[in-house]
Amino acid sequence: MNFNFIDLVEYIGTFAFAISGIRMAAHQRFDWFGAYVVGFVTAVGGGTLRDLLLGVPPFWMHSASYLICTAVAFLLVVVFKKQIERISRAIFIFDTIGLCLFVVVGIEKTLLMGEFPFWVAIIMGCITGAAGGIFRDIFLNIEPLIFRKEIYASACVLGGVVYWICSRAGLNIVVTQAFTALSIFLIRFIAVKYKIGLPTMKE
Amino acid sequence: MNFNFIDLVEYIGTFAFAISGIRMAAHQRFDWFGAYVVGFVTAVGGGTLRDLLLGVPPFWMHSASYLICTAVAFLLVVVFKKQIERISRAIFIFDTIGLCLFVVVGIEKTLLMGEFPFWVAIIMGCITGAAGGIFRDIFLNIEPLIFRKEIYASACVLGGVVYWICSRAGLNIVVTQAFTALSIFLIRFIAVKYKIGLPTMKE
Amino acid sequence: MNFNFIDLVEYIGTFAFAISGIRMAAHQRFDWFGAYVVGFVTAVGGGTLRDLLLGVPPFWMHSASYLICTAVAFLLVVVFKKQIERISRAIFIFDTIGLCLFVVVGIEKTLLMGEFPFWVAIIMGCITGAAGGIFRDIFLNIEPLIFRKEIYASACVLGGVVYWICSRAGLNIVVTQAFTALSIFLIRFIAVKYKIGLPTMKE
Repeated sequence: MNFNFIDLVEYIGTFAFAISGIRMAAHQRFDWFGAYVVGFVTAVGGGTLRDLLLGVPPFWMHSASYLICTAVAFLLVVVFKKQIERISRAIFIFDTIGLCLFVVVGIEKTLLMGEFPFWVAIIMGCITGAAGGIFRDIFLNIEPLIFRKEIYASACVLGGVVYWICSRAGLNIVVTQAFTALSIFLIRFIAVKYKIGLPTMKE
Repeated sequence: MNFNFIDLVEYIGTFAFAISGIRMAAHQRFDWFGAYVVGFVTAVGGGTLRDLLLGVPPFWMHSASYLICTAVAFLLVVVFKKQIERISRAIFIFDTIGLCLFVVVGIEKTLLMGEFPFWVAIIMGCITGAAGGIFRDIFLNIEPLIFRKEIYASACVLGGVVYWICSRAGLNIVVTQAFTALSIFLIRFIAVKYKIGLPTMKE
Repeated sequence: MNFNFIDLVEYIGTFAFAISGIRMAAHQRFDWFGAYVVGFVTAVGGGTLRDLLLGVPPFWMHSASYLICTAVAFLLVVVFKKQIERISRAIFIFDTIGLCLFVVVGIEKTLLMGEFPFWVAIIMGCITGAAGGIFRDIFLNIEPLIFRKEIYASACVLGGVVYWICSRAGLNIVVTQAFTALSIFLIRFIAVKYKIGLPTMKE
């Protein structure tokens, strides 16, 4: 049950991230194959970098479901182009849910290995959530958005701290996961709604 | 004999890819060292990413021959600049041969590990063939060509499918390799000759 | 004692590289989090790529000191912005010291594994010293500086050759390290002072 739930959220996250990658590739007039690749890299790039750093085989090499998720996202973007533009608010929420869940997955995978201190798990959570978008921006040859736009990766760090506090407080794992995901969601939602950003560096 | 043949094709592929990287670096007026590095990364980058994902040591760390191949390519570009421009048709054919052979090498190295399903081998074949060019374009700070220009990585996917069909049909390994390489070569050759490309995404 | 010395130089190198990354991120008006990430990647990116290629866990995952070093660098850049611009000559010297030390660390870590020929160690020394700057430039979406500007990575190669000569000559390890670091420092210092660069490729 818990297993299926995690799987479900991973697919939702993969799907949302793939849509974001494919839409941005479409804006730059990539061809179909290129758009599919950008979608896939956006979706699995963060988890892949995490797995390489942790020294374990990349997660997507053991199940074709991530390829299929990306294919469904691709078909939807190609066929329902206009409708998707209209529900971009829903897409934003999907994307943020994906982010929350990827961070939780990244933290837990690292902790489960039992070799690393907690701050490494927080970094791995951030990488799982945010690195796919960085790869997407490198592929599109644009400056990584997350370094200038809104609260994004920094929400992942705060979510990691929430996870740490909850687990130190002895809270149940499911409650800890829920609090972590919820805190990331709220921080990002509020930051975007009220246009709150981190200070920028002075030149 | 078979071993020597594979080695030979790897050197041809390395050489052709290195030349493509060095020529593009020259167009952006890189210095000699930078051009050499771009040539080397173009040649070995795809196989290196494949090996990192598979969890094995990068292939070029066990033999200096890839460094030497790149050095020969570098010297040729520096000394015979004009002549190389004139035989760019031959270079294109070399480059495509390199692509075909890299895909076959990538598929077989993955299958030999015996841990991964066939679709992973196809992806690894594509990565071996196409990722070096992506790294080259990132280094040159241009948008990766393979996502917009002609049939390239998609030919590798089709070649992977041909490999799969041949091996399912029980064909001899050498015949399978030959059919795979030939199919990639023909798809790419025809696509470039008749300017056939994949559809581009609508903005 | 020797151990503490190596640690000290690693922290100096990390600190200097982080400052270079943070200052360049500031020039592009990154937000605080983005600037910190760019600083961290500049500092540890080279060693991380080296460790992935060597198949060992990235060095910074075992000690928070690299994160802390980067945080100190970040605070200094934010608080003492103007003063740092004024001592940019000292920063250049720090940066070059960092480079020298990173190259030595990269060579020795590779040799200690006992699996690789010496030329791999030289490449790993260069990657440790120079790849962080390449990642920085990719994140900032500018063409990697080291491929066009001054002697940089090529000084690392020459330093690696000095290391090899010294160790073949049977010199003591500390003398070998000192000669290597000194040769890189001098090559780079002289190259920058007299504006000596490698020839650029002809277009």
